[in-house]
Amino acid sequence: MKPELRVALLGDGFMGKAHSNAWAQAPHFFDLPYRIRRKLICGLDTPLLHQTAAQWEWEETATDWRAAIERDDIDVIDIALPNHLHAEAAIAAARAGKIVLTEKPMANTVDEARAMVEAAAKVPNLVWYNYRRVPAIAFAKQLIDEGRVGQIYHYEAAYKQQWGADASRAATWRMDPKQGGSGVADDLLTHVIDTALYLNGPMKEGVAMAATFMPGRQVDDAFQAMIRFENGAMGAIMSTRFGIGSKNAKSFRIHGANAMLGFHLEKLNNLEFLDFTEPSTEQGVRDLMVTDLKHPIFGNFWRPGHIIGYEHSFIATLAAFLDALSKDEEFHPNFRDGLAVQQVLAGLQQSAASRQWVPLQPSA
Amino acid sequence: MKPELRVALLGDGFMGKAHSNAWAQAPHFFDLPYRIRRKLICGLDTPLLHQTAAQWEWEETATDWRAAIERDDIDVIDIALPNHLHAEAAIAAARAGKIVLTEKPMANTVDEARAMVEAAAKVPNLVWYNYRRVPAIAFAKQLIDEGRVGQIYHYEAAYKQQWGADASRAATWRMDPKQGGSGVADDLLTHVIDTALYLNGPMKEGVAMAATFMPGRQVDDAFQAMIRFENGAMGAIMSTRFGIGSKNAKSFRIHGANAMLGFHLEKLNNLEFLDFTEPSTEQGVRDLMVTDLKHPIFGNFWRPGHIIGYEHSFIATLAAFLDALSKDEEFHPNFRDGLAVQQVLAGLQQSAASRQWVPLQPSA
Amino acid sequence: MKPELRVALLGDGFMGKAHSNAWAQAPHFFDLPYRIRRKLICGLDTPLLHQTAAQWEWEETATDWRAAIERDDIDVIDIALPNHLHAEAAIAAARAGKIVLTEKPMANTVDEARAMVEAAAKVPNLVWYNYRRVPAIAFAKQLIDEGRVGQIYHYEAAYKQQWGADASRAATWRMDPKQGGSGVADDLLTHVIDTALYLNGPMKEGVAMAATFMPGRQVDDAFQAMIRFENGAMGAIMSTRFGIGSKNAKSFRIHGANAMLGFHLEKLNNLEFLDFTEPSTEQGVRDLMVTDLKHPIFGNFWRPGHIIGYEHSFIATLAAFLDALSKDEEFHPNFRDGLAVQQVLAGLQQSAASRQWVPLQPSA
Amino acid sequence: MKPELRVALLGDGFMGKAHSNAWAQAPHFFDLPYRIRRKLICGLDTPLLHQTAAQWEWEETATDWRAAIERDDIDVIDIALPNHLHAEAAIAAARAGKIVLTEKPMANTVDEARAMVEAAAKVPNLVWYNYRRVPAIAFAKQLIDEGRVGQIYHYEAAYKQQWGADASRAATWRMDPKQGGSGVADDLLTHVIDTALYLNGPMKEGVAMAATFMPGRQVDDAFQAMIRFENGAMGAIMSTRFGIGSKNAKSFRIHGANAMLGFHLEKLNNLEFLDFTEPSTEQGVRDLMVTDLKHPIFGNFWRPGHIIGYEHSFIATLAAFLDALSKDEEFHPNFRDGLAVQQVLAGLQQSAASRQWVPLQPSA
Repeated sequence: MKPELRVALLGDGFMGKAHSNAWAQAPHFFDLPYRIRRKLICGLDTPLLHQTAAQWEWEETATDWRAAIERDDIDVIDIALPNHLHAEAAIAAARAGKIVLTEKPMANTVDEARAMVEAAAKVPNLVWYNYRRVPAIAFAKQLIDEGRVGQIYHYEAAYKQQWGADASRAATWRMDPKQGGSGVADDLLTHVIDTALYLNGPMKEGVAMAATFMPGRQVDDAFQAMIRFENGAMGAIMSTRFGIGSKNAKSFRIHGANAMLGFHLEKLNNLEFLDFTEPSTEQGVRDLMVTDLKHPIFGNFWRPGHIIGYEHSFIATLAAFLDALSKDEEFHPNFRDGLAVQQVLAGLQQSAASRQWVPLQPSA
Repeated sequence: MKPELRVALLGDGFMGKAHSNAWAQAPHFFDLPYRIRRKLICGLDTPLLHQTAAQWEWEETATDWRAAIERDDIDVIDIALPNHLHAEAAIAAARAGKIVLTEKPMANTVDEARAMVEAAAKVPNLVWYNYRRVPAIAFAKQLIDEGRVGQIYHYEAAYKQQWGADASRAATWRMDPKQGGSGVADDLLTHVIDTALYLNGPMKEGVAMAATFMPGRQVDDAFQAMIRFENGAMGAIMSTRFGIGSKNAKSFRIHGANAMLGFHLEKLNNLEFLDFTEPSTEQGVRDLMVTDLKHPIFGNFWRPGHIIGYEHSFIATLAAFLDALSKDEEFHPNFRDGLAVQQVLAGLQQSAASRQWVPLQPSA
Repeated sequence: MKPELRVALLGDGFMGKAHSNAWAQAPHFFDLPYRIRRKLICGLDTPLLHQTAAQWEWEETATDWRAAIERDDIDVIDIALPNHLHAEAAIAAARAGKIVLTEKPMANTVDEARAMVEAAAKVPNLVWYNYRRVPAIAFAKQLIDEGRVGQIYHYEAAYKQQWGADASRAATWRMDPKQGGSGVADDLLTHVIDTALYLNGPMKEGVAMAATFMPGRQVDDAFQAMIRFENGAMGAIMSTRFGIGSKNAKSFRIHGANAMLGFHLEKLNNLEFLDFTEPSTEQGVRDLMVTDLKHPIFGNFWRPGHIIGYEHSFIATLAAFLDALSKDEEFHPNFRDGLAVQQVLAGLQQSAASRQWVPLQPSA
Repeated sequence: MKPELRVALLGDGFMGKAHSNAWAQAPHFFDLPYRIRRKLICGLDTPLLHQTAAQWEWEETATDWRAAIERDDIDVIDIALPNHLHAEAAIAAARAGKIVLTEKPMANTVDEARAMVEAAAKVPNLVWYNYRRVPAIAFAKQLIDEGRVGQIYHYEAAYKQQWGADASRAATWRMDPKQGGSGVADDLLTHVIDTALYLNGPMKEGVAMAATFMPGRQVDDAFQAMIRFENGAMGAIMSTRFGIGSKNAKSFRIHGANAMLGFHLEKLNNLEFLDFTEPSTEQGVRDLMVTDLKHPIFGNFWRPGHIIGYEHSFIATLAAFLDALSKDEEFHPNFRDGLAVQQVLAGLQQSAASRQWVPLQPSA
């Protein structure tokens, strides 16, 4: 009989739905080492909470997430609250001895993130940088680790959305710093940074710039930076809410001595691959469908060519976390990984303000 | 309190997994008019059956699907058995007053299909031509119905896979007619035909050819046909298990007086669209992401650009069926639609044998 | 000192411009074995003739092409007249001992084409199936000849244009059989057939259908056929002037036991290639730019990635012809190759009329 | 009778071939206001010079380009010498009253470029930023000027090649500053800058970084910058000779309030266009073939869909220059435009050295 994990999900918004789905679906596609009970979902006392609970079969609802953390019949706290509450909730949960999962960005400040790492030193923890488990990104990582890409010269990445250009959105909480809203750097660039650190390693230094295109908005609408990675690669990263034509365009392109890799989240089953070691007449950008049974992760879902979607990155992340948990192995991305992202982010935000190059290397 | 539907799923293979997922997920993404109970799954008495039941939370397992059909505590029979058993199971289920859903191809012969239609005259029924509910295909249908495409000149479609080229597969049941295996026409061309009838209406006549590339195989490996549609369009359809380079390439291309449309299942969130009524300098093939909240179906899943996968077509099909059921409306594709597919298929198979053009028009 | 070739070009329309460019540019990009003199261009006595002659530096103009053929100071007759005059002009030129080049389709009938072959038995000759010398098509041929594609299962090809849908064009000579105008089969399908014979070898049998979408038009607007090749491949070919969204879309797709190849004339520097012998995780459609110095033909033009256009296929064809001429080698595509195309075309046109499969194999 | 222009081309390398082709072909595709005489080509006394002269029909050859400039029977000096000779040659030619055209980069320093502008104040002049006359780029400019793109938020551009990764190339003159070789910024980034100034207007400030990946090389292998344009747009530009997988990949992407535009030189007949003013369900990246008779420039070449290549941008540039010359109108890009590019380049090179943001605005 598998042990049971009783989960409380804090938050019932869009990410609450994505997490609910992950908890519901992970046992279907993966032979998990635990039985999952969707015990409790917390939200404001609105019809949304009750509808979400009903549709996603959470056993109970609650409006006081602080109380939920203290309950003895909860093993896992999964935090999908607004950003400014992540630190408080995660620290409380860790102190209560819970397994803690938190949405990204992990925190609003490096200090918060550091406190979270310390508080969670003894409990299993995760930050929801779910895109590491998109099979195409996992396969890119595999190719890099196997030396198929060689020395990386250029690492270019972006996360572009377009909804910031909608003036009527100016008033939403996502745009209001006081309500925990944040600029595009906190929101989207953090995903770019995590994937960059994952695929290309630590960053040595960077210089950044930000823009707020929408009059009256208090947060950045667009943010870009140039990076020098520790491995010598030249980096260019950016995120924007004014990337007209881009719905959800997280992308990267890597030029290495032996290969080129390219990825675009809107076609997340595919990886562009050019093998520079082949005869020059046969080199061409390959559109790999990362849907083979021998590719990482995909085999748990469907058959080759039967594509998966956005939600599957959450399912695969959760399954990997639970697998590591059962084996008492360290999982990544965890709070330390999340802290590394926050440190880069903070450095770049400082650079955008100071207009200077800044070191990004984590203190050893 | 919503009424309950108690479901028995006959079959625990690949399609059993796809259907299990649909039954599990439909209530999550859609506010269904029913409570779904995954009551019973039938299969051979193997570890697979028990694993599938456990992972997908079916309450019971059984090995005798004929007995399952007779149970009083089952409302819905969902048939994912090998093809040669569809007719027997569906007819028995219909006679037992069950709601009946069956995988495609609906039957092995037109006579079987006609008997199924007759038996199911009084019970709600569905054939799992799930691709009609891919949002991009549903949106193609909408554009056609709105007159955006105009008179259709050319309808070209294919379903290509490559696994038939693997000689070691020759022995699987899918290749053995006695075990209910079938050629590529029954297996893949039926999907092509259903989509063609859905998007472009009835076919007037056709001429077909088949090939068996693998020595010793008893079923067709590839099958193609030319079609004259009732609306005057010229058609070319094909399916193959030797489409090297194609993992799951169901595709169509439509040239109409006002627009071109193109679709490819391996990138199922996208629809190619060229609007021929625009100024000539601005005409170009558009890569529409059919992931907008105003597009059909997609809004039930995620946000724009957060793509869906293969499985969602089953979920959406089931949700639409249950919606129609609750409103006592006729659902499509139902057994009559499935029969129409079988009639076209049978005509084309006859043409491939006789090397003659054959009429395909259903008797009025 | 290189010998001189004095050329007379019959025709000053669009193809006249393409041929003028070829005669002007071949000596620039290729170290030809001859000095080319653009001696004479023939056309109707209109401003166009004089403008073409002036812009393309033809030494003389003439309106009587029959007289031009008889001139002693002409070595080469290049025929770009309306189709119904090809046979008469080519036969006269051959009888006058000229080197003869003719536009495609070579003739209006198989009898004409056969008479041309006979008349030209002793003179060097060429049919302008220029696309064989698109580097990407030449490279496809090389890959096939090297066994990289293996047994070909499927050969699919099309030539789609859209201008037929312009009702105002109904009156042009291209649509009037009496003025030498022809249907889409003569005009575009012949290119498809020539490339198919070049890449995939002889055709055994076929069945065809035609359509005339525009009321009152006397020629076919669209034409398609299914083919069984002698090598066992299943073929599907088509051409249309109602391919809405397609400006000049000559394309093919080949599925072989070892590889997939794809080509599209609107992106003629590229060849799609999937190598089915690679590990399954690394198979993907490769977008080869056929612009490498080691690719066929391209090295005579520019550097890798510095693409060429439509016109370069004519230049390369001419250069290859002159090279063969200087070495007294047989050139392809010559009149015999053109005849083979006409035989296939005639067979398919007969099939479209008779609604029967027809043999396409040339009498041995 | 059209007036005659007697041209001397200084240089017989790769660019000499491209210019020879332009002088030869411009009169064929355009009804030029001048008769062109390819009078003289200058190069080192090698077989290449004589072969180039012979193949491209230059009347004379010479080895002393300084003497050529002084000849009375020359009207136009077209400079395709190594970069470090551009200034000397252009100034001498201008002082001799010649029409002067020079390859890019215009000069090695801003001082040189400024001296060239002054010297050429009274003579017609051009810098060969040929890509402005790629029809797709000219059409992008037209869409921007018509307001179809709206306020530009993001301007991203790159020029990537991969041959720098070939270690055996380290010794070529292009890598040796003393022989006039230059880094990737001078060579490729200048094209990026010119197109950026053309499409998006002046740059306000920038910050840059360079890298030399190949040990022992004295010039930059890769160079990137972030830009703030005067119109408020955020810019990111880069060039590299280590863009593995990129043969000749000059590209840009523009996100504006009303549209997205994208271009890639390896598919130069195409422009990506997304119209953000359309209904959200119909927005998609459009692959425009800029080959319509109503598109800028293209109509002089072939018919829609009959694509052009790299060389045609030179032909079109030359034709536009000669047209302006005949009308006594100012041509762009001229020496002043070339100077503007040099000023931006110098600023960015200074920034890469100083690691500071630098102003890029030309002194008013």
